[in-house]
Amino acid sequence: MTKEINSEFCFKLKSVENKARRGEVLTAHGAIQTPAFMPVGTAATVKALRNDDIKNSGAEIILGNTYHLMLRPGMDLMKEIGGLHKFMNWDRPILTDSGGFQVMSLSKIRKISDAGVEFSSHIDGSKYFVSPEKSIEIQHILGSDITMIFDECVQFPATYEQAKIAMERSILWANKSKEAFVKRAGYGIFGIVQGSTFADLREISAQKLIEIGFDGYAIGGLAVGEGQKEMFAVLDYVPDFLPQNRPRYLMGVGKPSDIVGAVLRGVDMFDCVIPTRSGRTGQAFVRDGVINIRNSKYRQDEKPLDDKCGCFACKNHSRAYLHHLTKAGEILASMLMSQHNIFYYQDLMRDIRKAIEEGKFTQFAADFLQSQSGASLDI
Amino acid sequence: MTKEINSEFCFKLKSVENKARRGEVLTAHGAIQTPAFMPVGTAATVKALRNDDIKNSGAEIILGNTYHLMLRPGMDLMKEIGGLHKFMNWDRPILTDSGGFQVMSLSKIRKISDAGVEFSSHIDGSKYFVSPEKSIEIQHILGSDITMIFDECVQFPATYEQAKIAMERSILWANKSKEAFVKRAGYGIFGIVQGSTFADLREISAQKLIEIGFDGYAIGGLAVGEGQKEMFAVLDYVPDFLPQNRPRYLMGVGKPSDIVGAVLRGVDMFDCVIPTRSGRTGQAFVRDGVINIRNSKYRQDEKPLDDKCGCFACKNHSRAYLHHLTKAGEILASMLMSQHNIFYYQDLMRDIRKAIEEGKFTQFAADFLQSQSGASLDI
Repeated sequence: MTKEINSEFCFKLKSVENKARRGEVLTAHGAIQTPAFMPVGTAATVKALRNDDIKNSGAEIILGNTYHLMLRPGMDLMKEIGGLHKFMNWDRPILTDSGGFQVMSLSKIRKISDAGVEFSSHIDGSKYFVSPEKSIEIQHILGSDITMIFDECVQFPATYEQAKIAMERSILWANKSKEAFVKRAGYGIFGIVQGSTFADLREISAQKLIEIGFDGYAIGGLAVGEGQKEMFAVLDYVPDFLPQNRPRYLMGVGKPSDIVGAVLRGVDMFDCVIPTRSGRTGQAFVRDGVINIRNSKYRQDEKPLDDKCGCFACKNHSRAYLHHLTKAGEILASMLMSQHNIFYYQDLMRDIRKAIEEGKFTQFAADFLQSQSGASLDI
Repeated sequence: MTKEINSEFCFKLKSVENKARRGEVLTAHGAIQTPAFMPVGTAATVKALRNDDIKNSGAEIILGNTYHLMLRPGMDLMKEIGGLHKFMNWDRPILTDSGGFQVMSLSKIRKISDAGVEFSSHIDGSKYFVSPEKSIEIQHILGSDITMIFDECVQFPATYEQAKIAMERSILWANKSKEAFVKRAGYGIFGIVQGSTFADLREISAQKLIEIGFDGYAIGGLAVGEGQKEMFAVLDYVPDFLPQNRPRYLMGVGKPSDIVGAVLRGVDMFDCVIPTRSGRTGQAFVRDGVINIRNSKYRQDEKPLDDKCGCFACKNHSRAYLHHLTKAGEILASMLMSQHNIFYYQDLMRDIRKAIEEGKFTQFAADFLQSQSGASLDI
């Protein structure tokens, strides 16, 4: 079922407006137009969406979580079946994270050393050891079009010393990751810039990664509680440390305004659980902000969630119906709301790409951020 | 969005094989080919299915629950919005039960009399009173193509005396229901035969209902714990009490073998939560029985649930993937499994209708019941 194209993994920069970039990433499973948002498919499913729903939204790439997939269904099965594309019958590109972030945030860490991390599963407590080599091997088994290096992500706030140690270990692991990566046409590996909110550490991290040489560069260690202002402050300088001819990926980000602000600062790729997680709790992204469909003011509201949206939910159902389904705890509420939010995010990326192509993105971003000033309409 | 056709509510008998009947019910929202299975849309949603999924399965009518809809979203909203078709954007026929069964099984009954039932909501404890007149009025507001009379359903086992009292009260309520029903082209009202497992009570019930005159006749008080053998024993005689030129509906039934056995005995319509509820707990109906996808033997099984099935899940996903999703508690598991089961049920009804048309249903039923002898393959 899964098709592969036999071309080199590459990034084409199509147009630039100030720091904002309109590009295209070519992978073994097809092209990704950037700036791109990747829905998160943690456990081999973008929660509450079928593959055709994901495709209908326009998403060209999804993200899988190495940590979750390693624990369940497990790598023996993945090897047997032939990778994640085949397992979930998804024939477009997949990016997998390295497991580093989840190992630190979800599991019970047993021991961390330059060799790797020993930890206990959050599902059943069983012990695992993940090294850079192991993470890359797992991502190879998963068949990821884009493999991420194994890194150490510090919490926010971190002291300079903590950030420096983790960044240096991440560079060590970046070297090991690159060595372990098996080069194949159409498959790439991304480095991850660390260094918390310290510009000099970020610059050193970027330089060392560039020396090793990667197919793309991610910015890690953000969206960990620092807030949008602090994140934008870091994004004001980190992209300048990165090469023009490689895609830049801001991990785990974010809200629509985060994305617009990051594109403005030169970022090309994003992933976040916000659209699906929000959908499951009754929050819908609409043209002028966010609404909480549980609010009683929607009980008799016969309008769609967003009358400018072309998703299945907006074309077929009213806010009143979604209010009812959400209040009643119906699965269909999670399905329709998640689908709408993913569609909204892809609409946003389409608008962003078009604006850059037309040289109107700076104005678009200003208007968008203005329109979102009251982003939480009723939460 | 909802279309109406302006014809009389009627039943056409197309062909008969022994007691089995192939027919068509015409309603304000279109035709229903019988024997028909109606997916249950309790709270204005067939759980975990979108409307297009329901239609793609071939289902031509769904059932809504008056009791649940009365409590949530409530009749003020239903009136405001203009009925259930519009509320959930379903443009095909809807049958609503009268609420009688759920009032007795779910709520805390306060008082039951010839006038009606006073009870407390199972959601928030608030008090309600439902009479036959009220039930019919609610179903009118819902815009049901097929309204059911308000009846009293006794538990199984019931003494002769209990069954007689409830049957007689149901006849009283049948009269009141018929009087309260507003006749409109394309909309019908069904009587409900009661009398538990007592043939003489069933016969009296049927006769009295026929005297009142209904557009169809349901068989109530079955699938309440009596088992298939006892149910078939009742179905051996009840359909003979009913007119040939009206549809017959066996309420709340059932497993595939129940349906085949009931069609063999002259029943035309069915509803049941089994396909959707089973789907949410990991059970899938397949050509030779039922499988529990949680069973570890499916962990590496790359075959579809049922290789003769044309549903989205079977065309796109493996048992191994569904096993994983179910074990991980993913919403997509409920979506795919429920959709498969509803599709299976509609396939079964298509096969039944075709077999009757071709005069081969007796043989089909014998083969089917034989194939289902080990129905629970691994539960």
